[in-house]
Amino acid sequence: MSHEQRAMIIELMHNAPQSEDRTTAGQRTSFDSQFKDPELGEGVTLRPTTLGGVEAIDIAVEGSDRPGLILYLHGGGYVVGSANTGTFLATALARRVGTPAVSLDYRLAPEAPFPAAVDDAYAAYRALLDGGTRASDIVLAGDSAGGGLVLAVLLSARRDGLPQPAGAVLFSPWTDLSLSGASMDARAQLDPIFDRDQVQWYADQYLAGRDPLHELVSPAFADLTGLPPLLIQVGSYEVLLDDSVRLAARAAESEVDVSLEIVAGVPHVFQLLAGNLDEADEALDRAGQFLITRLDVERPAYEASRQAS
Amino acid sequence: MSHEQRAMIIELMHNAPQSEDRTTAGQRTSFDSQFKDPELGEGVTLRPTTLGGVEAIDIAVEGSDRPGLILYLHGGGYVVGSANTGTFLATALARRVGTPAVSLDYRLAPEAPFPAAVDDAYAAYRALLDGGTRASDIVLAGDSAGGGLVLAVLLSARRDGLPQPAGAVLFSPWTDLSLSGASMDARAQLDPIFDRDQVQWYADQYLAGRDPLHELVSPAFADLTGLPPLLIQVGSYEVLLDDSVRLAARAAESEVDVSLEIVAGVPHVFQLLAGNLDEADEALDRAGQFLITRLDVERPAYEASRQAS
Repeated sequence: MSHEQRAMIIELMHNAPQSEDRTTAGQRTSFDSQFKDPELGEGVTLRPTTLGGVEAIDIAVEGSDRPGLILYLHGGGYVVGSANTGTFLATALARRVGTPAVSLDYRLAPEAPFPAAVDDAYAAYRALLDGGTRASDIVLAGDSAGGGLVLAVLLSARRDGLPQPAGAVLFSPWTDLSLSGASMDARAQLDPIFDRDQVQWYADQYLAGRDPLHELVSPAFADLTGLPPLLIQVGSYEVLLDDSVRLAARAAESEVDVSLEIVAGVPHVFQLLAGNLDEADEALDRAGQFLITRLDVERPAYEASRQAS
Repeated sequence: MSHEQRAMIIELMHNAPQSEDRTTAGQRTSFDSQFKDPELGEGVTLRPTTLGGVEAIDIAVEGSDRPGLILYLHGGGYVVGSANTGTFLATALARRVGTPAVSLDYRLAPEAPFPAAVDDAYAAYRALLDGGTRASDIVLAGDSAGGGLVLAVLLSARRDGLPQPAGAVLFSPWTDLSLSGASMDARAQLDPIFDRDQVQWYADQYLAGRDPLHELVSPAFADLTGLPPLLIQVGSYEVLLDDSVRLAARAAESEVDVSLEIVAGVPHVFQLLAGNLDEADEALDRAGQFLITRLDVERPAYEASRQAS
């Protein structure tokens, strides 16, 4: 049953009409059209807000009462997408975890190349801390470029001696802007969404001539020491598969707890297929469970250290 | 708290007196002594049995009523250990999953080198099928060499066109008897249990001159197509870390669902520390949940195909 679901969806995606308009505006229109009226389910309230001077969308799911907050960073190659396109996965996590979420409208390239997105995402995280939210009550999540951006926030916080959040979930994170993973070519025929040329186009927009190996754009090569537990989910039908595999290996070398879940035969950010693909719903369930565990684990420790100080 | 647990245990292990007796008998005595009177918890019945002509221990936990069976393959480098030393982890899984388990006494090297262990483990799996147990009701689990042996059983079943079990759990599996992983040297100072020389000694006993790259001894290099979903758990303080990382990458390349959980700062088969290390209990909880999901998922599909035939 589910193997049939996977095959059918991949077939549909391979045959989907691609936007021939490779301008930034054309890519944005094409991407946004896939997220028109996302099915967020019952009892969801979206409210525009700002966080650290960055526009965002507050997401509240009726009946959610777990202490904590999910800061969500959308995907789109640092060039397309928005807080709005991030609401589907942010809401899916918020519903499962039982906390609110914030989907951030960080600036995009080429108008605002690296490090603008990092500056915005990190400003949002700092604003949460400055506003009194405890780091142990915050979890980060993101997909694709947003997954890379989550890691850039964690590395920035470490650099500045700020506390780390309780954990992070990365859906098909883009962690190597030098495109050096073997899967970039080995998986090209299987990936129904991207090939090397397309990924390179996004990298060029964001880097604008900067070093693709900078740790804040390619955390697959960074020392990850001190980062909180990470959950990485990736499909096997992705040119970005090795971005996840190498990140997990790097995390282990850096003594960071990491879980890498590879789902066979599914595409980039397959969690977006929730409702239509069992593996997507199940992956979101596991991600929610991971975040619940992280928020619960950190709480007693924090209380203890607070009382001690 | 738990970071302190990890550090203390690693310190204790680094300072533990090592058996200077490098004979097979000496290694077996030393290994067995660590498993004297394992704390199996309440309501456990152990009963000697045979399965496919191989001695084994049937493990029943009071109140367990989920349909299914765990076939457990103990660790010990194919040279030491026994069905008895496997009972601790087999029981820990059986209790969490709610099924019985069988811990197998496969033959050991050097008296019985490769492929004796594979022959025995595969004979046990075939005996379950021949006895009427549905493949979809069987899950396999093993630690260290036992994890490699689980993969050898799966590859043997695929070769012969037998159905695959519902899933498999591998604790720190030994998947490369050529010892080519970078972690073999990179992690040597951190690993409180093994170094390259020790691992090579076990490999030599088991291989007895056979090719270390044979897929039934080094499944890290095998085509894993057709295998059921795998859960791999490994510590970061292991010379065998890369045996897990490369196996996960190989599984993805073979379109096999795989979850790789790397726990930082813990040693080889850290699940043996359950009761003394939170990460060990939590890892067993996740492994149990994975097996429950696999046994539940496969059931409806099997029922459907049975009715159709």
